[in-house]
Amino acid sequence: MDRDPPLLRGQNVIAASFVEGRGSVFSAFDPTLERPLPPDFREADPGQILEAAAEALGAFGPYRRLPAARRADFLAACAEGIEALGDALLARASAETGLPIARLRGERARTCDQLRAFAALLREGSWVEARLDLADPGRLPSPRPGLRRWLVPVGPVAVFGASNFPLAFSVAGGDTASALAAGCPVVVKAHPAHPGTSELIARALVQALEASGLPRGVFSMLHGGAGVGQALVQTPAIAAVGFTGSRVAGRALFDLAAARPRPIPCFAEMGSVNPVFVLPGALRERAEEIGAGFAASMTLGAGQFCTKPGVLAAVRGEGLDRLLEACTSRLRASPAQPLLTPAIHDRYRAGCLRWSRHPALTALLPPGDAGGGRALPGLWKATARALGDDPELGEELFGPAALVVGCDSAAQMLELCASLHGQLTASVHWSDADLPEVPGWLEAAASISGRVVANGFPTGVEVCPSMQHGGPFPASTDARFTSVGTAAILRWVRPVAFQSVPSGLLPSALQDGNPDGIRRLVDGRPER
Amino acid sequence: MDRDPPLLRGQNVIAASFVEGRGSVFSAFDPTLERPLPPDFREADPGQILEAAAEALGAFGPYRRLPAARRADFLAACAEGIEALGDALLARASAETGLPIARLRGERARTCDQLRAFAALLREGSWVEARLDLADPGRLPSPRPGLRRWLVPVGPVAVFGASNFPLAFSVAGGDTASALAAGCPVVVKAHPAHPGTSELIARALVQALEASGLPRGVFSMLHGGAGVGQALVQTPAIAAVGFTGSRVAGRALFDLAAARPRPIPCFAEMGSVNPVFVLPGALRERAEEIGAGFAASMTLGAGQFCTKPGVLAAVRGEGLDRLLEACTSRLRASPAQPLLTPAIHDRYRAGCLRWSRHPALTALLPPGDAGGGRALPGLWKATARALGDDPELGEELFGPAALVVGCDSAAQMLELCASLHGQLTASVHWSDADLPEVPGWLEAAASISGRVVANGFPTGVEVCPSMQHGGPFPASTDARFTSVGTAAILRWVRPVAFQSVPSGLLPSALQDGNPDGIRRLVDGRPER
Repeated sequence: MDRDPPLLRGQNVIAASFVEGRGSVFSAFDPTLERPLPPDFREADPGQILEAAAEALGAFGPYRRLPAARRADFLAACAEGIEALGDALLARASAETGLPIARLRGERARTCDQLRAFAALLREGSWVEARLDLADPGRLPSPRPGLRRWLVPVGPVAVFGASNFPLAFSVAGGDTASALAAGCPVVVKAHPAHPGTSELIARALVQALEASGLPRGVFSMLHGGAGVGQALVQTPAIAAVGFTGSRVAGRALFDLAAARPRPIPCFAEMGSVNPVFVLPGALRERAEEIGAGFAASMTLGAGQFCTKPGVLAAVRGEGLDRLLEACTSRLRASPAQPLLTPAIHDRYRAGCLRWSRHPALTALLPPGDAGGGRALPGLWKATARALGDDPELGEELFGPAALVVGCDSAAQMLELCASLHGQLTASVHWSDADLPEVPGWLEAAASISGRVVANGFPTGVEVCPSMQHGGPFPASTDARFTSVGTAAILRWVRPVAFQSVPSGLLPSALQDGNPDGIRRLVDGRPER
Repeated sequence: MDRDPPLLRGQNVIAASFVEGRGSVFSAFDPTLERPLPPDFREADPGQILEAAAEALGAFGPYRRLPAARRADFLAACAEGIEALGDALLARASAETGLPIARLRGERARTCDQLRAFAALLREGSWVEARLDLADPGRLPSPRPGLRRWLVPVGPVAVFGASNFPLAFSVAGGDTASALAAGCPVVVKAHPAHPGTSELIARALVQALEASGLPRGVFSMLHGGAGVGQALVQTPAIAAVGFTGSRVAGRALFDLAAARPRPIPCFAEMGSVNPVFVLPGALRERAEEIGAGFAASMTLGAGQFCTKPGVLAAVRGEGLDRLLEACTSRLRASPAQPLLTPAIHDRYRAGCLRWSRHPALTALLPPGDAGGGRALPGLWKATARALGDDPELGEELFGPAALVVGCDSAAQMLELCASLHGQLTASVHWSDADLPEVPGWLEAAASISGRVVANGFPTGVEVCPSMQHGGPFPASTDARFTSVGTAAILRWVRPVAFQSVPSGLLPSALQDGNPDGIRRLVDGRPER
């Protein structure tokens, strides 16, 4: 630590100003040392939620009218400001989450990379998907009018910080970065498990906003629990919602968003069991390697990733026995790790107990009590039929726990895949001997998920144009969009077409001669 | 008419087979002659709804696996089959809707053009939005996996025929064409106002399907009213919904779709008042031309277009008086026209009566009784304040009726624009004298609508890549998508990313060397 710990004020941010909350008092908790962390924070009250949303709506017009380069500069300044928080940020985040400093250093890099990736996307400019269809006054039976279309921001976005990514999916995470890039003001509901980290990041964003001279309503951050979040989603000024978290919370927000007098899109990424299928050839040839790899992936970050593989399926037999031997021996060597919050730890313990008592499951490695609030990994064995009989076994258990499903045959394993509900990812391991079956497997895996991983594990989500992080329900509420990668910006925009508007009056992206030099479609074909 | 009228069977289509419905009996009605039309039709019963959806789900795998060229051939065959129905189709459609033959001939051409446009889109292939990010095994701190993403179909789509477009937005309309193009089987709920037209079109589609050798479950068509539609939307096998119609019906379907255990997207296009704003310079210079143009646009198709302009706003004064003079004189010369159905006619009459009795409205041209089920146009005058006080005045009144809003000033007119809820279109008329105000007006119009029309009227929706037909709620339930133009296909697909899958095992669109020769992004840049 190269600095003194920063002085936290425990405040909310409304229109880029730090203000005392008027709601309940709460504090952060150190899951490693099992004690509360100062200072006291205060939740926002209903009036403050409305105020933040109204300020966001007021800033929407001025913000969207700014040249995209100004928004890019702001995002880059946010990244710089976050880096300038130094090790104090990592120390506070580690204290609030129990996540190791090294992991948080990587997450900070990713967070800043994301902000800069969206800045680069804005500077390049083609993301607005400009399409021009030129007028044809001589067309019969009627003249064809000229039409030009691009993407415009939808309005203020409510962003929910995620417990498991205090940096990359929280106050300045992918949802915020993509919404700000699109031209949407943001009201963040900070996750109550890391309010100090949230305040530090908010400080960097406020400074960047002030330095960039942007309208202050572009950024607000409110503290609070489910009540504050639900009120925010129902606030009329809010135009869209970005959420990463549990199925129950995500579905509740989705339902509120859909039931509004003016329904709004709610992008809730709710995790999944991310099944891993091991085909017979791969099982024969690489059982130990796959078993060890699975153990490493399911315990990464204490099993608290949306992409944690929670189910491994293979045909029963000697190969699967070897895989399990390698997996359990690796798991046994895996250290106990603190979970993010006492509530998450309680749910993990309760889930493990339920599985250990489940008549259709055999405990291969029941997690013992590590003491000190830390969690040990757990592994259970099931039959494919058991998963069909009890859909709850196909639900995510957050933490370092997984099920191994022994199938009677490869055909039964394929049926199991088809029977699973929507997943963020589905992984398939094969060897050359399996090749004839692989096309069918890739299709089956694609039909239930947003990302198919070949001969690997799902943890580790690249931030790039071709990433798809979001799968069929219940993995996410809208499988047509991704919450990771530059395509995430498409959640916060809608197309507008201009008919017969002279070129000089249009945004530069749509003008004759393509002054922005971006990729455009003209009469359905790439320009030039 | 160059043929005998076709023999209608009054049947439903389940998995490309004509079957007797097991529900209620109904028949079509000729709104011009005001008498029922033979034969009797029978609605589908709940079992038949489930059966059609199950067949669609069963056909989904085989259908999506077909090469895109096979789907393109099928769409082209559908267009040919519809044309081969000849004038008998137009005669039946005219009898069922009261729409003139010439209009229906144009609508048929548009319907077939749409089918062929999607066939061309499939043959060209770039619509799958292929993005490749190549592996970088040497990247630090961890290797970068290769990722390749494209769009896959979501599953069986429920399509609702629209009363006002018996061809272009019904059984083989834009929703069906785009869903079939995407690789989604379709279950159409035919609109009960034109069941015979629907049966004829279905016949063409079944023949095309049989000739193309496609899985039969790809196409079903059910007769029924709201109950059949609601049951269809709630059927688990249905993955998405396309609807064009009233706000009440659209919202009901949207709510059902969102409340399912597995929520599904519901694209409901629900119309709007499509405001026309006349700036002071344009009013001075072109009052008569604009007044006449507005009258022509609001009475086109008896005012039964989603894009009918239902509100014209301008600053009060001599110019507006001239505009109204030209508008009313043109409206007076406008012939009485039959409306699509007796129910629509009843609602039109009731709406006109409500407006004529409204204390804040002045009747400029109260529609007299034309007799014989025909409707005459109506025009009323209001103040901007009246629209603010009574939001109901901003609701669509289906039929040839409109409000003229006299504003105190251009500033009040701009406030009026900002206060309107979501619109499909917003039109702005200006002259050179108005130019300094135009950028602000274009932005205001874009902020409430999906299409901004300059110096023109909103009726007439081009089918082209840059069309946006769909605006902020309540114009549609999802402003991020269009129901007209080739981009309509994006409603029925979702991205899937393949990680570390060898090129040879990927769909050709994602393979090394780009064998399909489509536009792709590689590492974020256009290929080559």
